[in-house]
Amino acid sequence: MSKIKSLIRKTTNFPATKNTDNNLEPIQKNNTATNSTANTPIEQTRWNGWGNVSINKTVSPHGAKLIKSHIGKTKKLSSVSLQQVLKTVPKSRLPAALTDLDIVSTDKEVRLRHARGQSFPDWIAMHGGDFEVFPDGVAFPESTADVETLLTLANEHDLIVIPFGGGTSVVGHINPQKGSRPVLTIAMSKMDQLLDLDFESQIATFGAGTQGPTVEAQLDAHGYRLGHYPQSWELSTLGGWIAARSSGQQSLGYGRIEQLFAGGTLVTPQGVLNIADIPASSAGPDLREIMMGTEGRAGIFTTVKMRVQPQPEEELFKVAFLPNWEAGKEVLRQAVQKNVRLSMLRLSNAVETDAHLHLGTSPSQFLAISTYLKARGLSSDKVMLTYGVSGDKAQNKLALTQFNKLLKQHGSVTGKITDIMGSVWAHGRFKFPYLRGTLWDKGIMVDTFETATNWNNIDEQMQQMQEAVRTSLTEESEEVMAFTHISHVYKQGASLYTTYFFRAAKDHATTLQRWQKIKQAASTSLANGKATISHQHGVGRDHAPYLAAEKGRLGMQVTHDMLKSLDPEQRMNPGVLLEK
Amino acid sequence: MSKIKSLIRKTTNFPATKNTDNNLEPIQKNNTATNSTANTPIEQTRWNGWGNVSINKTVSPHGAKLIKSHIGKTKKLSSVSLQQVLKTVPKSRLPAALTDLDIVSTDKEVRLRHARGQSFPDWIAMHGGDFEVFPDGVAFPESTADVETLLTLANEHDLIVIPFGGGTSVVGHINPQKGSRPVLTIAMSKMDQLLDLDFESQIATFGAGTQGPTVEAQLDAHGYRLGHYPQSWELSTLGGWIAARSSGQQSLGYGRIEQLFAGGTLVTPQGVLNIADIPASSAGPDLREIMMGTEGRAGIFTTVKMRVQPQPEEELFKVAFLPNWEAGKEVLRQAVQKNVRLSMLRLSNAVETDAHLHLGTSPSQFLAISTYLKARGLSSDKVMLTYGVSGDKAQNKLALTQFNKLLKQHGSVTGKITDIMGSVWAHGRFKFPYLRGTLWDKGIMVDTFETATNWNNIDEQMQQMQEAVRTSLTEESEEVMAFTHISHVYKQGASLYTTYFFRAAKDHATTLQRWQKIKQAASTSLANGKATISHQHGVGRDHAPYLAAEKGRLGMQVTHDMLKSLDPEQRMNPGVLLEK
Repeated sequence: MSKIKSLIRKTTNFPATKNTDNNLEPIQKNNTATNSTANTPIEQTRWNGWGNVSINKTVSPHGAKLIKSHIGKTKKLSSVSLQQVLKTVPKSRLPAALTDLDIVSTDKEVRLRHARGQSFPDWIAMHGGDFEVFPDGVAFPESTADVETLLTLANEHDLIVIPFGGGTSVVGHINPQKGSRPVLTIAMSKMDQLLDLDFESQIATFGAGTQGPTVEAQLDAHGYRLGHYPQSWELSTLGGWIAARSSGQQSLGYGRIEQLFAGGTLVTPQGVLNIADIPASSAGPDLREIMMGTEGRAGIFTTVKMRVQPQPEEELFKVAFLPNWEAGKEVLRQAVQKNVRLSMLRLSNAVETDAHLHLGTSPSQFLAISTYLKARGLSSDKVMLTYGVSGDKAQNKLALTQFNKLLKQHGSVTGKITDIMGSVWAHGRFKFPYLRGTLWDKGIMVDTFETATNWNNIDEQMQQMQEAVRTSLTEESEEVMAFTHISHVYKQGASLYTTYFFRAAKDHATTLQRWQKIKQAASTSLANGKATISHQHGVGRDHAPYLAAEKGRLGMQVTHDMLKSLDPEQRMNPGVLLEK
Repeated sequence: MSKIKSLIRKTTNFPATKNTDNNLEPIQKNNTATNSTANTPIEQTRWNGWGNVSINKTVSPHGAKLIKSHIGKTKKLSSVSLQQVLKTVPKSRLPAALTDLDIVSTDKEVRLRHARGQSFPDWIAMHGGDFEVFPDGVAFPESTADVETLLTLANEHDLIVIPFGGGTSVVGHINPQKGSRPVLTIAMSKMDQLLDLDFESQIATFGAGTQGPTVEAQLDAHGYRLGHYPQSWELSTLGGWIAARSSGQQSLGYGRIEQLFAGGTLVTPQGVLNIADIPASSAGPDLREIMMGTEGRAGIFTTVKMRVQPQPEEELFKVAFLPNWEAGKEVLRQAVQKNVRLSMLRLSNAVETDAHLHLGTSPSQFLAISTYLKARGLSSDKVMLTYGVSGDKAQNKLALTQFNKLLKQHGSVTGKITDIMGSVWAHGRFKFPYLRGTLWDKGIMVDTFETATNWNNIDEQMQQMQEAVRTSLTEESEEVMAFTHISHVYKQGASLYTTYFFRAAKDHATTLQRWQKIKQAASTSLANGKATISHQHGVGRDHAPYLAAEKGRLGMQVTHDMLKSLDPEQRMNPGVLLEK
């Protein structure tokens, strides 16, 4: 039996939810019967792809055909087996002081499963079988004290330390690098419990390793919600969201992680930093904001205090179509600037709208929707707008009234069919990442990148990004298909999220080279001082070379010096966020 | 003629608003005819007290009587004349490289007027005539380039540099200290213009020295508003608000300065740090948040980009009375947690309510209101709640409907008379600071302190704070009168603002000693890890000794190292924020 299955949950120094805190007696709710209050065990997830092994998502034939009409005929890349990769895992270099601990595993499969995330280079490595580097061991702490012990030992034995949440990074946050210092990955998966819920202040204290569904299931048992739904929600964790400044699908209503994170405990190589959960303060720079986005380079979040709220009285997701991008963008900008209280707003450009209608439908559904939209006068310029409300019924009603007025002013098309599309979107919104594996198996490579910029730069930025990506493989006469949506809106501007498709090359290495060209073109188009290198994915290793264009020389210097203050030996996740 | 009047506005390298930017053609508005689009000249302000020399605020006889019924008979402290203090200003130690500049003044009155702020020790110094230290000179830069020149010279000549906005600090932000290095104060008063207004992204670019009324008058000319109204608004500046993390009276609706500041230029001893105005980002720690609250220790903000919005369709301020503190607090907490869209919420405790009714009324008004409230069944436990809406009419209407329901559920008393009180509050809301001088002249010393804490700690914190202050002079058999209001609310908690009164002693030095005892008692009551040392006044010198209780050892360390990165010689405002 793999050691991964034998790492049994030990008694921890965390209070057991039920016994020590009376206010944590869960209420009876019908809809939580099937929701787990513990994280998904890692052996239930794909070792070389996204998500739960039991979940698959198919792609429609006309969807695949549409993509191929852009990029050409494709051929599947080969994939190595788990057993083949296990043979490449070297002997651990961890000293006995670490390997003697119950909470540390040097099992090869455990190390393999914590070596890579979900970036495109990770997928190439996992399918090609060239992992390059594995952590020398993986620790599964169960308390802040455990993490303190691990970091003390890391100091004593000069280890590199990599914090690991859900392993969902798409930009290279958790990959060990070659080097002489042994690498200890600290997996936070066992710190997955709600520890306290202050109903008056609406503050929930959690272990930082708690995954999205586990967060919501434990809160829902008390009638509460966090409301943070990044697309990686099934597996990503509170600590990861905080360390990488995550944004959820309903952040317009619930706030980004910056608004939800109230304080907590960060264990650093210099000791424990407790960030007080004070509602607001003018007492110097905000430690919360200094530590959010440090991506494991300052330390490891162990317990976190989150701002929660009662479950919404009502939650609705809807779809509308607008005649063109300009009309859709104007609806979004006016809605957010007029404080219309929606929980989400998302606008696909015309190419993405067309692709969505192809990819997410059966042939008969596609025909029905297309015919309907054509009959209502929409052309191929049409754009799909997804929106939602979540909260108090009277507030939702006013928001929908005000939003519908804006929609109508800009020539919207809505009806029963678009209402159904809203529900379908809501139902399937965490399943999109599964599509990547489906397409991968057809030789269709897919990746995304994203940014945010001010409203007055949105159109130019989108045009530049897409053009850069589409023409990035012209040299080798390869087409790249790209489309974009606005995923989050702010009064000042919005985020742009671009998806692109290209063909697998003859082998893994050549395919990776194609990706590198595209990624460089995309990232260079962002490094203009007006757009961020990432609105929601973080920096990791993949974006680190482009960060200086955004932060400037002094911005980089102050970030570096601040991290060095807490990690003078640069043992925490080196190379992530800052190249040095 | 004093040199202060001869410092004529030079041609700057800032674009002149009207000529260079077509989008800045102001619209015609009737109500802006009398609003100035330039800062208040410093010679129109009191050299030894608050505000414009032409404005006074009287206190009602029954108001003064109420205070004296607590603290006893009072006697006025003496006050020195400006001429007497001018005699104590020493020769400037600035080198010729500085004094040769047109933008630097060593005039004695100019230096005197930039030596002290508005803290209680400042008032004692200004009235007692013992200023201790004066800056060796005051620079009036007109551009970012000017500030760069000044900091380069400061590096070359090893000067101490103190940034000066409106000079309104109540915690000792701008006071020069004794030392061997000459002190250059950099007054930002000439950088007071709106430089650009991006209507699409709703971003206004200003000179950082622009004062509150000048900000709003220049925006109002285009139909826009910032909406940041701290009580110091008449004189305080954008740069000061950002550097000290200010919060305005309507921050519930418009946001704290953290939500309003989008980016800008900070000139540091290491060069210029440009903070990009990107709507949101996951690319590492947020430089805006790292630089806000640095209180001049990292550098000087020169131009700032602010998130603005169109003038509200409707703005209302109202007053209601609740039977007791618990009922009032419950209304506030539920309103903010249920997302009721108010622009402000403020709740005076019973003692403050009584004091307000005394201090702000004529005898006949006092009688009318008291009789009315008694007839409606309210006792001496009654509390006054002030609230406002600002924005879209339909959103305001829903907010007032939902809020009125909460008020009624908790036994509120409202009517024509309370509506009038709301308007009176709004009209006089920036005039309260003038009361300090009026009371000072009667020998009644008044000061305030404030904090924020979670809802589950509000009552205990308030009780502790007030008790600490009231009993702080028991040793010398002096009574201190203290009362408190909640000034800002958050879903997680609220701010508490305590006002206290005590008697002037026989002389300035003994009076200062009394204040020091009270201040120590108050600050110690906050240094408990649950409350902040300041919600809106900042740290300055007065709160610096208490900051470690809030930030912790590592929090202090990282803040220190981050500042040192930009100011390795510790020449920027040393002793402010951090003691070292």
